[in-house]
Amino acid sequence: MEPIDASLGLDAAGIALLPGAQLGTQLHEQLKARILQGQLPAALRLPTTRALAEALGISRNTVVRVYERLLSEGYLQTRVGDGTYVAALRATPSRTVVHLPTEPAPPDTPMWARVQAFTPPRRVEGPPRAFRHGVPALELFPAETWSRLLARFWRRSDAGLLGYTEAAGLPRLRELIAAYLSHSRGLHCTAEQVIVTSGAQQAISLAALALLKPSDRVAVESPGYRAAAAALSLTGAELLRVPVDAEGLQVAALEALGPCRLVHVTPSHQFPSCVAMSLPRRLALIHWAERQDAFLLEDDYDGEYRHAGLPLAPLASLDRSQRTLYVGSFSKLLAPGLRLGYLVAPAGFATVLTRLRGLLDRHSPIAEQTVLADFIEQGHFLRHLRRARRAATQRRDALLEAWQREFGSALPLAPIDAGLHALLPLETPAQEARLVQLGRAAGLELAGLREVGGLPSHSSRAGIVFGFAAVAPAQLRGAVRSLHKAWNKG
Amino acid sequence: MEPIDASLGLDAAGIALLPGAQLGTQLHEQLKARILQGQLPAALRLPTTRALAEALGISRNTVVRVYERLLSEGYLQTRVGDGTYVAALRATPSRTVVHLPTEPAPPDTPMWARVQAFTPPRRVEGPPRAFRHGVPALELFPAETWSRLLARFWRRSDAGLLGYTEAAGLPRLRELIAAYLSHSRGLHCTAEQVIVTSGAQQAISLAALALLKPSDRVAVESPGYRAAAAALSLTGAELLRVPVDAEGLQVAALEALGPCRLVHVTPSHQFPSCVAMSLPRRLALIHWAERQDAFLLEDDYDGEYRHAGLPLAPLASLDRSQRTLYVGSFSKLLAPGLRLGYLVAPAGFATVLTRLRGLLDRHSPIAEQTVLADFIEQGHFLRHLRRARRAATQRRDALLEAWQREFGSALPLAPIDAGLHALLPLETPAQEARLVQLGRAAGLELAGLREVGGLPSHSSRAGIVFGFAAVAPAQLRGAVRSLHKAWNKG
Repeated sequence: MEPIDASLGLDAAGIALLPGAQLGTQLHEQLKARILQGQLPAALRLPTTRALAEALGISRNTVVRVYERLLSEGYLQTRVGDGTYVAALRATPSRTVVHLPTEPAPPDTPMWARVQAFTPPRRVEGPPRAFRHGVPALELFPAETWSRLLARFWRRSDAGLLGYTEAAGLPRLRELIAAYLSHSRGLHCTAEQVIVTSGAQQAISLAALALLKPSDRVAVESPGYRAAAAALSLTGAELLRVPVDAEGLQVAALEALGPCRLVHVTPSHQFPSCVAMSLPRRLALIHWAERQDAFLLEDDYDGEYRHAGLPLAPLASLDRSQRTLYVGSFSKLLAPGLRLGYLVAPAGFATVLTRLRGLLDRHSPIAEQTVLADFIEQGHFLRHLRRARRAATQRRDALLEAWQREFGSALPLAPIDAGLHALLPLETPAQEARLVQLGRAAGLELAGLREVGGLPSHSSRAGIVFGFAAVAPAQLRGAVRSLHKAWNKG
Repeated sequence: MEPIDASLGLDAAGIALLPGAQLGTQLHEQLKARILQGQLPAALRLPTTRALAEALGISRNTVVRVYERLLSEGYLQTRVGDGTYVAALRATPSRTVVHLPTEPAPPDTPMWARVQAFTPPRRVEGPPRAFRHGVPALELFPAETWSRLLARFWRRSDAGLLGYTEAAGLPRLRELIAAYLSHSRGLHCTAEQVIVTSGAQQAISLAALALLKPSDRVAVESPGYRAAAAALSLTGAELLRVPVDAEGLQVAALEALGPCRLVHVTPSHQFPSCVAMSLPRRLALIHWAERQDAFLLEDDYDGEYRHAGLPLAPLASLDRSQRTLYVGSFSKLLAPGLRLGYLVAPAGFATVLTRLRGLLDRHSPIAEQTVLADFIEQGHFLRHLRRARRAATQRRDALLEAWQREFGSALPLAPIDAGLHALLPLETPAQEARLVQLGRAAGLELAGLREVGGLPSHSSRAGIVFGFAAVAPAQLRGAVRSLHKAWNKG
């Protein structure tokens, strides 16, 4: 290390270059830092390049380049016929660091304060174990077909396919989704009503952001889907909890809450209680929405999976007053990691929702959208759906049988007519906590109702959600045995 | 078509089945529609399945299945030892359709009203023509390498890779972005500060949604980037316009506006005026933000492209008070269709911004993130960047030469030291409109400042943005000739 000669006129303390590596860069950084920190004050005349080069024992060219760079960056200036001087910059900002406020959020509040009210759920990653919920039989995902279609996209891609596209998604994909919904769900809509989203979560947040304002009141199911409740409350709207019974959301209880702008519901397969909303309740809910001038946000996250009975018509197909926004997802049909879902909006809303989506993040990736359209068009989608459904039903049966064998009727699971998870209702939060703890100690993924079921104190009910689709029947059977053993010992 | 016998007790008018195709489905749909519309009223006793089957001339089994389905759906009910009746449903909702309000938005307003204030920009798709702006040399995109890495991802993918992952993005990708920024932009940050986003637009909207509230005032450059201004104003914050001169945003003018919570700036290469913000301005801006307790949203959308001179340090590297949020994008380096960008947040903010991102749309697709990480790690990214930079500089030179040859100094382009577009400043909006029209008639993509430059009446300046990176030098030369010819004739 070579200290700078004090006779140069520089306050040289500490300026030192490590030999060998990028001497110019080192000198540039050190001079810049000193100028910014005021150690080399404005109007100070710098040594000549020759003098500094000699003092540092480096080549004069290096110093010339550093001076030029500092000149071009505005840290130095030259005076005609004179030398090189430190430029007059403002004093450097102090180190006062911004902190986020922690008080509760008044109505006129940025979202950060609202976000802080939610603790994110336990993150589970890696290969699924029993009883991970929220994911289908991922090992059945036809990765080879998907990859082949991707390769075809990239082979054929020209510059026109790599730029920007419509915020609502590729028209061809939207046509195919509309046709699928009409065929499989009895939901008749046009491609113009379909907005391709980054999963169901974006469909929910898009609807919430577009439609709600801080003075609004919004209703969610209790117990219910926590991430939806959190997205709705980002808008500052007040969250109301409506209890769920064996026919689904209790419309009478909703009615009793008074004015309300929007309600989030999971009629096909209530999350997490597994109930399907009865037809009279569906009609009553639509009727309520009409009287209240409210919106229905119908979240059909896994309604494609039916194990018994026939699916009921979605609210969006029954509602003729066009106040239902229908949320669909490919996360449970294909894979969550693809981030593909959609929102079906009443015709009058689609334009505004699309424009909002464009301002939030423009559109979904083009390759994924193209490949999904090819995948549907070539029949792979329906084929995969049949396999995934069959697997889900087999796994449900395996869980039910194993459960009956191990636990008998002491701890009965709620009926599972649809979807990818079962609910074990429990008497007390203490029971819930104990079983979750025992299960986790036995290497199982168990989610207590308190964790997945909604906001803190969202529901007075206790229970545990058992995902059954993510692993094979044998694993499920083994897992039920382990849990039963732990339960008997514990 | 077989009319139903009136003696059955059904109001049979219009119930008719087309022979052949899915008789059960037809009957189900028609009975359901009549129940919902009240034509088959509650408590009406239905004919026996045998009687109805005979009347319709279809198999009794078909009618039995339709009745069973309607029973399971709740449209019918049975009475013990008696027949089948229409269930008591609520009267069907009327057809009052919801409309979006059109009045201007008061502070307590859902976003839809704010969204309506913005007309989306002209959408340009298909293979790029001269002078499309906002896209790099897309034909150089290494589709083969990208596709190979994708195929590898899908070959190796196990179920653990297809589920959900961290909202902030894959840790490995965030490490690589942090290392790239440190190396190439002198911006030292940790992986924990990096949030992978769906392009720069999501980084901007994320920062805006998190930090702003309706009573806030926010500043944007004038002329400036319209999509950023629109995203900021989604929050209800008041937009203030700050003029830009040859050193960038005029901090003195900003100062004169009074309190302001956030300013969106493009210091590396101002959009659309092409100016690089001088170092004194950068420091003054940071100083201003400190005094105002304001945030700086630094949008470095194409700062990696330098044609002359050296890049200046980003605000985020100069600001030691941690109030700068840095927006980066792979849209101009790779391709916009990939939807990959990032936000670098001060350490204290990253957690809240990540949580908000999770509630908005969870995370970016896992395959794209993995492939981008591989692409960077294996050196393809820096290699591609060198090629893309070289091509951009060649195209810039071709545009400048052709322009000088055709237009001489009559209509001089503003200097182009960085980025992917040039600005032709014009005297009047009328000139701008005329040249845009002439160019479009000649098959060119031309964007007037009024269209790209910001909100309506965003700026008093007139001019045209010429993207030069999207097409080859020969095409640029031809396009300049065509424009000049049209200009002379027009």
